[in-house]
Amino acid sequence: MKSHTEYLWFNTRRQKEFVNITGECERILKESGIREGFMLVSAMHITAGVWVNDNESGILQDAMDFLEELAPFRADYRHHRTGETNGDAHLKNLLTHHQVIIPVTEGKLDLGPWQTIFYAEFDGQRRKRVVVKIIGE
Amino acid sequence: MKSHTEYLWFNTRRQKEFVNITGECERILKESGIREGFMLVSAMHITAGVWVNDNESGILQDAMDFLEELAPFRADYRHHRTGETNGDAHLKNLLTHHQVIIPVTEGKLDLGPWQTIFYAEFDGQRRKRVVVKIIGE
Amino acid sequence: MKSHTEYLWFNTRRQKEFVNITGECERILKESGIREGFMLVSAMHITAGVWVNDNESGILQDAMDFLEELAPFRADYRHHRTGETNGDAHLKNLLTHHQVIIPVTEGKLDLGPWQTIFYAEFDGQRRKRVVVKIIGE
Repeated sequence: MKSHTEYLWFNTRRQKEFVNITGECERILKESGIREGFMLVSAMHITAGVWVNDNESGILQDAMDFLEELAPFRADYRHHRTGETNGDAHLKNLLTHHQVIIPVTEGKLDLGPWQTIFYAEFDGQRRKRVVVKIIGE
Repeated sequence: MKSHTEYLWFNTRRQKEFVNITGECERILKESGIREGFMLVSAMHITAGVWVNDNESGILQDAMDFLEELAPFRADYRHHRTGETNGDAHLKNLLTHHQVIIPVTEGKLDLGPWQTIFYAEFDGQRRKRVVVKIIGE
Repeated sequence: MKSHTEYLWFNTRRQKEFVNITGECERILKESGIREGFMLVSAMHITAGVWVNDNESGILQDAMDFLEELAPFRADYRHHRTGETNGDAHLKNLLTHHQVIIPVTEGKLDLGPWQTIFYAEFDGQRRKRVVVKIIGE
């Protein structure tokens, strides 16, 4: 069994943003030399997520609006008693989930025709990290 | 390390539907010969999901109603400017998540007593695919 | 490839509760002797989940309140025609997701600085189980 681990750093210009990381994941796979296995793409922060969906700007905006509607900023989150103001970002993480597994088959990311890997930032404008780890052979 | 990959095709009669795929997953595991490892069950489309829950028709209907309530059809999704009408299905995918990992222990799917694997179709009546990939030994 | 499987049992005092299981996961990793790989932490029941977030009591209460708001108890869930009363717990499982993968790097759980692993009980006060399975080398 082989394994390969890299970390991607982000510092988004906007507070909330989807970042297409499919190309970076393909690059990491190539460097790993792994041809059959699983790639884990996992946010290392608790106010971000990873989502596999369509690279269509309307959907991405709809999804961010949707998360805002379900989990809006609220002054009265208990978490805000600590001085933080990002309680909504923790709840958006809960809804989105913070990780995905991409199957690796015959040396390629085994994605469907429209599947694109997005880092989902819910509390950006600071340095944050995603771990990309592949195991296989 | 061994790996085994199969694709399941669906063309559901209804637009929204849960399909029990536990038996298919057991068959694929048997064919793989793998006794210890992980099975990934992952939708390859962006308007479907995979959910592990109880094979009780009331829950499945409750879950579909719940997703409809949280992420209903809306004419004004930005995604619909592309001519598509399935914006809600992308949001239902976000809430449900599009994949699960089933542990494989002593040659069997290591599921709890009521855990059943469902393909969750949110925009059906056309051919769509799930990848089932097992790694282990 | 090596694999290591353990089961954690829970019987929470409250019906709904987050339980920090990071220490248990670290102990299991140490016993496995695995230094590079993936640890799956997966609820074996359909009314529980696993969430990686911050060990801050305000967030945990906010998250439970949030799940209660989105998926409250309702007398009229179809599932309740079976005599059950826990329909809301199945929907909370759907939103939270029932599992996570923790990367294992250089013999340690490769978590971000605030990431903590929680078992999320939505229908407790009875014996329930989580499977922790590591594959790697």
